[in-house]
Amino acid sequence: MNAERAARAALSAVAEPGDAFLNRLIDHCGAGRALESIRTARPPDGLSVTAKESARLEHWRIRLIAAAPDEDLTVCAELGGRLICPGDPEWPTTLDDLGGERPYALWLRGPADLRRSCLHSVAIVGSRAASSYGVHVAAEFAAELADSGWTVISGGALGIDAAAHRGSMAAEGPTVAVLANGFDVPYPASNEGLFAEMARRSVLVSESPPGTHPHRLRFLVRNRVIAALSRGTVIVEAEARSGALNTASWARRLNRVVMAVPGQVTSRTSVGAHRLLREEGTVLVSRHEEVIEAVGRIGDDLAPAPRTPVLPRDRLEPVTRSVLESFPARGPVGPAQLAAKAGVPMPVVNAKLGILAAGGFVERAHAGWRLTPTAKSSPPNSRASDPAESAPTDA
Amino acid sequence: MNAERAARAALSAVAEPGDAFLNRLIDHCGAGRALESIRTARPPDGLSVTAKESARLEHWRIRLIAAAPDEDLTVCAELGGRLICPGDPEWPTTLDDLGGERPYALWLRGPADLRRSCLHSVAIVGSRAASSYGVHVAAEFAAELADSGWTVISGGALGIDAAAHRGSMAAEGPTVAVLANGFDVPYPASNEGLFAEMARRSVLVSESPPGTHPHRLRFLVRNRVIAALSRGTVIVEAEARSGALNTASWARRLNRVVMAVPGQVTSRTSVGAHRLLREEGTVLVSRHEEVIEAVGRIGDDLAPAPRTPVLPRDRLEPVTRSVLESFPARGPVGPAQLAAKAGVPMPVVNAKLGILAAGGFVERAHAGWRLTPTAKSSPPNSRASDPAESAPTDA
Repeated sequence: MNAERAARAALSAVAEPGDAFLNRLIDHCGAGRALESIRTARPPDGLSVTAKESARLEHWRIRLIAAAPDEDLTVCAELGGRLICPGDPEWPTTLDDLGGERPYALWLRGPADLRRSCLHSVAIVGSRAASSYGVHVAAEFAAELADSGWTVISGGALGIDAAAHRGSMAAEGPTVAVLANGFDVPYPASNEGLFAEMARRSVLVSESPPGTHPHRLRFLVRNRVIAALSRGTVIVEAEARSGALNTASWARRLNRVVMAVPGQVTSRTSVGAHRLLREEGTVLVSRHEEVIEAVGRIGDDLAPAPRTPVLPRDRLEPVTRSVLESFPARGPVGPAQLAAKAGVPMPVVNAKLGILAAGGFVERAHAGWRLTPTAKSSPPNSRASDPAESAPTDA
Repeated sequence: MNAERAARAALSAVAEPGDAFLNRLIDHCGAGRALESIRTARPPDGLSVTAKESARLEHWRIRLIAAAPDEDLTVCAELGGRLICPGDPEWPTTLDDLGGERPYALWLRGPADLRRSCLHSVAIVGSRAASSYGVHVAAEFAAELADSGWTVISGGALGIDAAAHRGSMAAEGPTVAVLANGFDVPYPASNEGLFAEMARRSVLVSESPPGTHPHRLRFLVRNRVIAALSRGTVIVEAEARSGALNTASWARRLNRVVMAVPGQVTSRTSVGAHRLLREEGTVLVSRHEEVIEAVGRIGDDLAPAPRTPVLPRDRLEPVTRSVLESFPARGPVGPAQLAAKAGVPMPVVNAKLGILAAGGFVERAHAGWRLTPTAKSSPPNSRASDPAESAPTDA
């Protein structure tokens, strides 16, 4: 353990996470000299500080006296944990997006590699006082995301957080818990078994040394790490003042995708999710595929086409079929042209277009409508009675 | 009854509603000569028609032979109904937005004035096979909209439509049913009592003469009238292929506001509503105020501020209060300035801003944050223990 790492371990014990002044100190002279500056309560040469900042140095100096960073590192090692610092191979570079509010170091416990786990990751967060609906959806989404190779990140709280971690683990997926307390402090107590399981199979993350107890303020500050580690945040259920909305607002600020799961408008636990969904830029997600589509690379993870089965054409009604048969083999066409070609009035064409779109035969194009790839490749006069039999073959 | 009106009554009996060719005929030479042209199956002078259109003239000629427009008018009068035509004082001019697909005439029954009823109106539509949740929400929204002076328009179907009409009538509001059949045909039969009540207190609307039976095609064509009459359409519940989505798509095409009520993602009856909500431009509505805000004139019908009660300042935690007290009396301020002024780290300021916003003290401004009007007018050091006592007084 070199001096810089030991200094970061100490800094994580004395300062609140993500303090912009401390990060400025570290940027100016490195963690070791920043710690020295705290020990003497004197700013390093060449850095001008305000009176408030001087007072903070003094505050940290007092906390440093009470701190035991060497012991923290020993306890961490005894518990099988590790400290990671910026520049380490396991350090997730997405944390840099936090700028002056980035973590000084992270205390980890569990076998999963944090950086690799977070490469394809989604945060699932929400109310502690979740409804059974919310718990069900969080677990389902998490399990299906895990099945699709996505890591689920959450905060280890009761309710939605715990359901997300459990869902992911049920599907043998990696799941990351970012805690507001030391990774050895089982908070909430009823999640103790969950944390033990995660320490065995996945990874627990904290900005504070082992033994740190939770503090209300830290839950909100911790949320920025959840948002920064993931490509996007899904709010499953949130009451009007839920902390999950704070995670969503961090995600928005960090240009991550903000997603929310709707619920009944009569449910108190969906008020916050609905409020988010009324904001520009929040994506409504009703299935895990829609989450992947939203956070995946464009063109790489598009949600599969709607599950509506495509009927063989000859099972369409005659008028609907005649509208379909008026489509050119490629390129878009307007309703007026279709009406003229099919000899059907415009309102009927418009209605039939709705039916054809729902059936997966046609889709909106830039200037009108066009055949879908499926419709193009399906034989125009299949006599199959089972849709499966009418699927295009390789022969 | 002049000849033009009588001709429109006849045209509404022979042609499918909203036929663009017939509207072109009427535009060219008036309804009387359009009817004459049908009677002879010969296009009027100066109008060039395609072979398909000629065939349609012939088709209408045959239907005209079987039609009995005078009898339709007699029956209508006997039932206490009336025929309205473009240009009549009761004709809703918003129907002009349908262009070539506008109705030729409307058959009405019931005391309410259609045009006036529709001036402030919202369509509420959805699944026939609605869940109890959907029925509850449709009735609640309709009753609250009626209470706020808004007319509810729907289609008279089972499920959401009927719930919307009933909710509006329960609040003594006007409600408009646009039917796909004659206003005297009780379809569906189980809504017979509802229609009778509407004929007594509100208004039933049809594009077809009394006695016309429902036809599957007409339900979709009818939806354009629901969309055109209202300022916006709320989809309460819709399955993946619901006809309500067709109404939404007409509303979109007519530049009306498209709104949808979310539900549980595990509910089949919300799949269509969620799909709509994933499209650009659909407004999620969770309370009737949000409907009014979306369809109301800008600045005229803004939804009231969130119901979160504003606490007196002195009941805020010290750090939160110090952030609040760092706000300038007016104008926006950035988190960095607040952090400097309050002597609190940036992440804390950001967290506190969320709490202050949720409490109604501050709001986002163009460049940062600012005090809300409520926060400005509330006494900075109220000692009231009851929020009501801390409300600003006129004294």
